[in-house]
Amino acid sequence: MDDQAVRRVRLTLAYDGARYVGWQRQVNGLAVQEVVEEALSRLTGERTAVTGASRTDAGVHALGQTAHFDTRSRIPDERFALALNTILPPDIRAVNARTADCDFHARFSARAKTYRYWYHRSRVAPVLERGLRWHIPLPLDVATMSREARAMVGEHDFAAFAASGSKAKSTVREVTSVEVSEAPHDPALLELTIRGGGFLYNMVRILAGTLADVGAGKRESGAIARAIQTGDRLELGQTAPPHGLTLMNVEYDGDGGFR
Amino acid sequence: MDDQAVRRVRLTLAYDGARYVGWQRQVNGLAVQEVVEEALSRLTGERTAVTGASRTDAGVHALGQTAHFDTRSRIPDERFALALNTILPPDIRAVNARTADCDFHARFSARAKTYRYWYHRSRVAPVLERGLRWHIPLPLDVATMSREARAMVGEHDFAAFAASGSKAKSTVREVTSVEVSEAPHDPALLELTIRGGGFLYNMVRILAGTLADVGAGKRESGAIARAIQTGDRLELGQTAPPHGLTLMNVEYDGDGGFR
Repeated sequence: MDDQAVRRVRLTLAYDGARYVGWQRQVNGLAVQEVVEEALSRLTGERTAVTGASRTDAGVHALGQTAHFDTRSRIPDERFALALNTILPPDIRAVNARTADCDFHARFSARAKTYRYWYHRSRVAPVLERGLRWHIPLPLDVATMSREARAMVGEHDFAAFAASGSKAKSTVREVTSVEVSEAPHDPALLELTIRGGGFLYNMVRILAGTLADVGAGKRESGAIARAIQTGDRLELGQTAPPHGLTLMNVEYDGDGGFR
Repeated sequence: MDDQAVRRVRLTLAYDGARYVGWQRQVNGLAVQEVVEEALSRLTGERTAVTGASRTDAGVHALGQTAHFDTRSRIPDERFALALNTILPPDIRAVNARTADCDFHARFSARAKTYRYWYHRSRVAPVLERGLRWHIPLPLDVATMSREARAMVGEHDFAAFAASGSKAKSTVREVTSVEVSEAPHDPALLELTIRGGGFLYNMVRILAGTLADVGAGKRESGAIARAIQTGDRLELGQTAPPHGLTLMNVEYDGDGGFR
C-alpha cells in the first residue's frame, strides 16, 4: 500500500538554550526536542520522533547537537535543513540533514562529544554576550586553570562529578582532551574546551565551576586530582551556570553513519 | 543651605539595543536614556538629566556610548559605575564614570565616533549571535566591499545617505577611516568599522546595506562614489537592519574632558 521507503536521517542542530527546559521533553516547559519534532511533523506530514545524542540541560546551548529520525518524506537531503528552518523558530536552526545508515543512532553510535564553556573575566559584566558567558568579576589565571584541568584527561571514575540524583550506572568516563585558553580576539573571553567519550550529568559545569575557583585563587590547586581519587564532591566547586555551556559537536565512527 | 558642589560626570555605557526604542526618550516605548536617568535618580536621590553623544536608533547596540550628567552626589568616581550597575538592568551596563570638566559636553565636545557593523555570511543563520549580526545567505566578497567602502573616506556631502525625514542642516561630514574585514576567529563574521567626525541619521546602515549588495554582486562597484557625486539615494542599497550595528566608542580632544 505504502510505496515510500523509510529512511533514517542524521540531523545537525544549533540552538540557543535560554528559552528551553533542555533538549528532552518535560512536563514543566518547552523542550528543544519537542519543537524539532513538531516542525518535522509539519514538514513531512508524519508524526516524527527525534533522538538526540546529548540531553543538554535547561539553558545549555548547542552548535552541533546531532539527532536522528525516520521518515518516508521524499525531500532530498540538500533541501531538508533549509525547509525545516522555514518552520523552526530563530533560536533553533537545522545546520545539516543527511540520509544515514538504517542502524545509525545519534546517541549509541556517538564516539566523542565536545563541549565548550565560556567565561567572561572582567570588572563589568558583558552586555552583548551576556546570554553566552559566565561573568567572573575577578582575575582568573589561565595557566593555573589549564594545569588544573589536565587531571581530567584519561579514563577515570568521575563519581565526585556526578550530580546528586544522577541515575548513571557507572561513573567511569574517558576524557580525551581538555584545554583552557584566552580568546585572541577578546582577552576577557576564556574558553574551556573538553572532549570525551561521554560525560556525567552536570560534569562539565562542575568542572567549569571548580576551574573558576582555582583560577581565582579561592580553591587550592590539585582539587580535581584529589576529587577523582577520593570521589568527594566537596573537593569541587559550584556547578557553573548553564548559559556558559555549549555542545560544540558529536563525532561518529568512520563516515559517521553517512551513506 | 546646600554645601555639596555640583560636579559633571562623564559616563561610558554599553547596552543591548534589542529591547529599546533607541537612546533618546520617546513616547512609543522605553529608551536607554530614560532607564539610565531613572537609575541615576535612584542612586543619587536627585532628578538627573543625561545627555548622550550619539542618539542611537531603535535596536542599535553600544559598547562605548558616552554621556554626561551633573550631580551633587559624593559617590567617588571609582565606585560610581559599580553602584549604578546594581540598579541598571543587565542589558545596560555602566562601563566607567569619571568627573569631567564643567564644560565637558558628551555631544558637542565629541571629536570622533566609531561604529561597527557585523554581518554573518553563511547558508544557515547564526543562532547564538542572531541578535548581533545581519545574516546574509550569499557569498560576500570582502575585497570588493573593502574597495567600495574606501570612497567614503574624506570630507564629502553625504546627502544621498541622508534618510528621508532627516533634519540635518548640512549633509557634509568627514569620514576618517573605514575598513571591512573577515574576523580571524570566525570566517562567517564580517566586520565593517567606520570612524568619523559625525554621521547622518541611518548613514552607517545605508552604507552597510550598499556594501552587502556590492559584495554579493547584486549592485555594481562604484555605487558609493556615484552616490556622493550625484546625491542620489537610488544609487545606494537598502538600510541594513539595526541589530547588526554597534556604537564602539566616542573620542574627545586631549584628555577627553577628564580632570
